Amino acid sequence: MFRASILSRQFHTSRSVWRTGPLTPLTSEKLSSLRRSNKFKQLEQRDIDFFRSVLPANNVIHDAESDPAKSSMTPYNADFFNLHRGASSLCLFPTATEQVSEILKYCNKEMLAVVPQGGNTGVSGGANPVFDEIIINTSKMNQIRSFNDISGVAVVDAGVILESLDNFLEPHGYTVPLDLGAKGSCQLGGNVSTNAGGLRLMRFGNLHGNVLGLEVVLPDGTILDNLSTLRKDNTGYDLKQLFIGAEGTLGLVTGVSLLTPRRPSSVNLAMLALDSFDDIQKAFVMAKEDLSEILSAFEFWDDASMNLVKKVTLPDATYPIEAKSKFYALLETQGSRQEHDQEKLDAYLSRVMEADVAHDGVIAQDAKQIQALWQWRETIPEAIVKSGTAMTYDVSMDVKLLYKMVEDAKKHYNDRGLLGDGNVYYNFLGFGHVGDGNLHIMANIKGFDYKVQKDMDRFVYDWAIKHKGSITAEHGVGVAKVGYMEECKSEPQLRLMRAIKHALDPRGIMNPYKVVPGVLEDV
Amino acid sequence: MFRASILSRQFHTSRSVWRTGPLTPLTSEKLSSLRRSNKFKQLEQRDIDFFRSVLPANNVIHDAESDPAKSSMTPYNADFFNLHRGASSLCLFPTATEQVSEILKYCNKEMLAVVPQGGNTGVSGGANPVFDEIIINTSKMNQIRSFNDISGVAVVDAGVILESLDNFLEPHGYTVPLDLGAKGSCQLGGNVSTNAGGLRLMRFGNLHGNVLGLEVVLPDGTILDNLSTLRKDNTGYDLKQLFIGAEGTLGLVTGVSLLTPRRPSSVNLAMLALDSFDDIQKAFVMAKEDLSEILSAFEFWDDASMNLVKKVTLPDATYPIEAKSKFYALLETQGSRQEHDQEKLDAYLSRVMEADVAHDGVIAQDAKQIQALWQWRETIPEAIVKSGTAMTYDVSMDVKLLYKMVEDAKKHYNDRGLLGDGNVYYNFLGFGHVGDGNLHIMANIKGFDYKVQKDMDRFVYDWAIKHKGSITAEHGVGVAKVGYMEECKSEPQLRLMRAIKHALDPRGIMNPYKVVPGVLEDV
Repeated sequence: MFRASILSRQFHTSRSVWRTGPLTPLTSEKLSSLRRSNKFKQLEQRDIDFFRSVLPANNVIHDAESDPAKSSMTPYNADFFNLHRGASSLCLFPTATEQVSEILKYCNKEMLAVVPQGGNTGVSGGANPVFDEIIINTSKMNQIRSFNDISGVAVVDAGVILESLDNFLEPHGYTVPLDLGAKGSCQLGGNVSTNAGGLRLMRFGNLHGNVLGLEVVLPDGTILDNLSTLRKDNTGYDLKQLFIGAEGTLGLVTGVSLLTPRRPSSVNLAMLALDSFDDIQKAFVMAKEDLSEILSAFEFWDDASMNLVKKVTLPDATYPIEAKSKFYALLETQGSRQEHDQEKLDAYLSRVMEADVAHDGVIAQDAKQIQALWQWRETIPEAIVKSGTAMTYDVSMDVKLLYKMVEDAKKHYNDRGLLGDGNVYYNFLGFGHVGDGNLHIMANIKGFDYKVQKDMDRFVYDWAIKHKGSITAEHGVGVAKVGYMEECKSEPQLRLMRAIKHALDPRGIMNPYKVVPGVLEDV
Repeated sequence: MFRASILSRQFHTSRSVWRTGPLTPLTSEKLSSLRRSNKFKQLEQRDIDFFRSVLPANNVIHDAESDPAKSSMTPYNADFFNLHRGASSLCLFPTATEQVSEILKYCNKEMLAVVPQGGNTGVSGGANPVFDEIIINTSKMNQIRSFNDISGVAVVDAGVILESLDNFLEPHGYTVPLDLGAKGSCQLGGNVSTNAGGLRLMRFGNLHGNVLGLEVVLPDGTILDNLSTLRKDNTGYDLKQLFIGAEGTLGLVTGVSLLTPRRPSSVNLAMLALDSFDDIQKAFVMAKEDLSEILSAFEFWDDASMNLVKKVTLPDATYPIEAKSKFYALLETQGSRQEHDQEKLDAYLSRVMEADVAHDGVIAQDAKQIQALWQWRETIPEAIVKSGTAMTYDVSMDVKLLYKMVEDAKKHYNDRGLLGDGNVYYNFLGFGHVGDGNLHIMANIKGFDYKVQKDMDRFVYDWAIKHKGSITAEHGVGVAKVGYMEECKSEPQLRLMRAIKHALDPRGIMNPYKVVPGVLEDV
């Protein structure tokens, strides 16, 4: 087994620890302007009777209890961080595509709003109801439909868990082309719908390239069987692309055809200590030169992250690198020949040290050390969440600017006297995927103050938009960022998104209030 | 310089030789049912005056001469094989996106149909007028706008030639992520619009993964600036995906942001002789195991292809492998360390020989030999075209079935007494990209008989559809296969394609009669 799977299980089991937010929905000023659309019907008993007639027994949860602490619906109504929570009283668990089709056809006719849900590991509220939308959860659609061991193409139900697929692929010598912290509970349908990125995107590319086909139920119940296993197919528009990253607003993904790469037989991991973000960039370019086809991840974090992890999540561990440093980088290689990969890595490390780009470094000697080193990077989010109320962002931009955002943010709050121990913003830190220009900037804030949250949203999003970056690199828009879409997208872009939404979901029942603003007005 | 560039230049200069078809448009029964839509206005002098006022001097060709042999419009009206030819009298050469915007806005208002055209190297008639559509040619939009040598992201005008971009990238240590025969004349905008695949798709993935952003002028003149340079961006629907492979029917691509990979410093090439297509598959799986991350191409062809190349295009060359064989494979590695790649390749070759999967093989010793070996594969199309009227297909399917189509086709025509020397079908052969499940099946036919062509279309497309393959893996639908779309796509797929077409091009002026059938009826 590879390290990632082990860690992701820990991540999964520690999920309850992460729920630090108060049990109230997020209500920034923008979001509070959201009102339930009265175009949608309120749920009636005859609707529930219909759904019970379509689904196998025990595949319907209905609970009208309004106290979240008592409701059996809470695990489905609330998101991963418990920041976004709706008040649905109905969760449906279809076991087959035809059932999804019957459900959606009925909902479309009756004007009942729905929200598709997979493993519910998202962090933008995309998979949770905003009000009383019916939840359609894909957990019970979890069969691997087929696998071709010559082409490496797997066809799976939307509810198959990413790690389960990886475990299935292992004896065949293949692996999944994406890896993320939530691997142990996220589902393929959700991965596709959020266009999940993760740690090894720089190596295997994104889901727009790796998904070969999708089976999608459209809002009117039509089953769009686009489940091709072909690597090349230019017969008309590539329809599946519409649903990759659409966050369930255009249809419900029920099946996925995925191209899987060969499983690497050799994995190496090295940690570097560096003095500046300039040196991080130099080390990255040199890694692309020397490690080229075997470079599978290039992560970085700052000293604040390192020290917080030491304090909170790894108190018993010794620092892997003794000398204190401003920045750290973790680079991973995946290849097919250990001695070749080791030789390339050794040559690279000598070069970055001799060129004074890195001033110290360690290489993991075995699988256990690989796992231990990865923890310094992978437990950063956990460390900050355990340190109090955490603000977390997921932005992308030109690699050159990546850490400047953190520096500017610190200066911004320091100038206003808000930064530092015992202050409003404390534990301010930055880390991320250098290879993808993807920064996670996080901060602990005193208490849980929506105004403070909004203030930081403003700073981060303004900065990202001003520097031609993205306000969400991989987490998605969901309900969390829909209020900022009109600022970060041009009028033609928004117009086209609305045109697509109207063309596919003319009655607006699919995951309303999310992703594209101003859609329901025209329904 | 790499081999591919040199070969592609030869391909380019030999283009005139390839024009073997008669100078009449293709008129299979399906296609002959196409009629010019009277929804479109006939061109008037005031329209031409308007275009002249928008464009720089000398950027308008207007020629109403109806004899193709005399018209200066013929190079733009006719396609690569001269099988598809329209009768437009106007070709516009904008030099800036704003000019394209003004042109389309005018055409949309006046109901003037247009066809976008790049290097005009397509083989499905997608870039040529069917009737009198105005040609908008991007050749004069050919600037490289920017290049980031940390991220490897290049932003270019649509009219930049693929090989020019590759030459530009070379000193920076980067290369283009796609490679095809027409490299020396095809343009990036056309590559994107046809979702070009080519030789190294198995290594670098497709354009849906490698294109980071597009600038597109919509039919109403709106400039959609979606020219992101971000590797990860999940703010709403990934609009650029709509235009990748849409063959210019949804808008005109004017700018491309492309992720480029590191240029390999080590290239190796080996040719294998094998007895069966079963052995080809075994050799392919073993190559994925042993060569994994450095495998960049795995091509195959049959003895008929080999012998025809020897006879027609390489008469002075000696066979690279002495013993005659039923099948041949060419496998290429691209990596960053010659000694490592060589060692992996040697180990692989020993294993396929010892396992009796291949019974003979050669490795190229230098760049000259690499070029010479590639010619046995790359001149197959040229050899068959020079041998008479050639039928050419581009299908994809499960790798296991790849050569069965050729065997079944041969049997089909042999049973009917139509196959063999001096018969209707002669020089029947198959070759293709094993890694992509992409077969090129070709045949010479006696004379140029549309009925015979239609008969072979029928066989190939029926077979591909029956076996869940694609009737066009990479060449695209264009006008050539639009008549078959209703057979190879489901009703929900066609309905959704039409909905997208209507949403983006409600007046239907963009490249009409192509890709999606039954669109103009609803305009």
